[in-house]
Amino acid sequence: MFKKILYPTDFSDVAQKALDFIKELKNAGAEEVVILHVIDKRFFDAIAWYTTKDLPEMKRDLLKEVTSEIEPIEKELKDLGFKVKVRIETGDPFTEILRVEREENVSSMAIGSHGVSNIEEMFLGSVSEKVIRKAKKPVHVIKR
Amino acid sequence: MFKKILYPTDFSDVAQKALDFIKELKNAGAEEVVILHVIDKRFFDAIAWYTTKDLPEMKRDLLKEVTSEIEPIEKELKDLGFKVKVRIETGDPFTEILRVEREENVSSMAIGSHGVSNIEEMFLGSVSEKVIRKAKKPVHVIKR
Repeated sequence: MFKKILYPTDFSDVAQKALDFIKELKNAGAEEVVILHVIDKRFFDAIAWYTTKDLPEMKRDLLKEVTSEIEPIEKELKDLGFKVKVRIETGDPFTEILRVEREENVSSMAIGSHGVSNIEEMFLGSVSEKVIRKAKKPVHVIKR
Repeated sequence: MFKKILYPTDFSDVAQKALDFIKELKNAGAEEVVILHVIDKRFFDAIAWYTTKDLPEMKRDLLKEVTSEIEPIEKELKDLGFKVKVRIETGDPFTEILRVEREENVSSMAIGSHGVSNIEEMFLGSVSEKVIRKAKKPVHVIKR
């Protein structure tokens, strides 16, 4: 049930709590964690519109930024004895999370109940709610 | 995180899968399980309207039926070394699950993504979705 866990993170506080949860699953047989960050396509487009840099340079910057957020998480998990895989995707977070869930054939997923963008979620429903509804495998929902 | 787990069950297949999940948490530090069955008030009222028996007798029958469903689950968990508490409540399942979550001060909850009444859920949203949204503690959502 816990062998390979998907960990989608937007680097929010509640995503951090989901990480704590995963660490506790080590004793229940968790072996591998897939850390996933989705760069929201709309966020990406907004920066692309705003920036004076060219697109490849902007992509490099963004990737560097995301990587620097992921690296300490990766290290922490590896130090605890987990096998770790990192995936950085660009697109609609909901769609990408479900795509990676299937592609990686994970055993379960740990996700925060809310992401960083509260106001948007109030109107559109949270990414998490849509993920929970459509996921194929068990979802551990971590609350704020 | 897993010390005391709430297990709301409507005895559906997916609730059975949630039980399998809980059993796997034994090695991650799970000690106690609170088995909860909520007798839906509307279901109760419908039977009360239909039956020719008097109310106390009908209540006894219902309780006997529910107890006979819970007993093997209770035994199974106890045999695995869990401490077990059984709660049978009557009311709105959503409200009762959240009430017991708070009253019992559980560490987390394992729940099926869908209950037994599919058609109703299609229109009203599932009990689980409402519970996930309002729960205070982590929710393990087990999929069909």
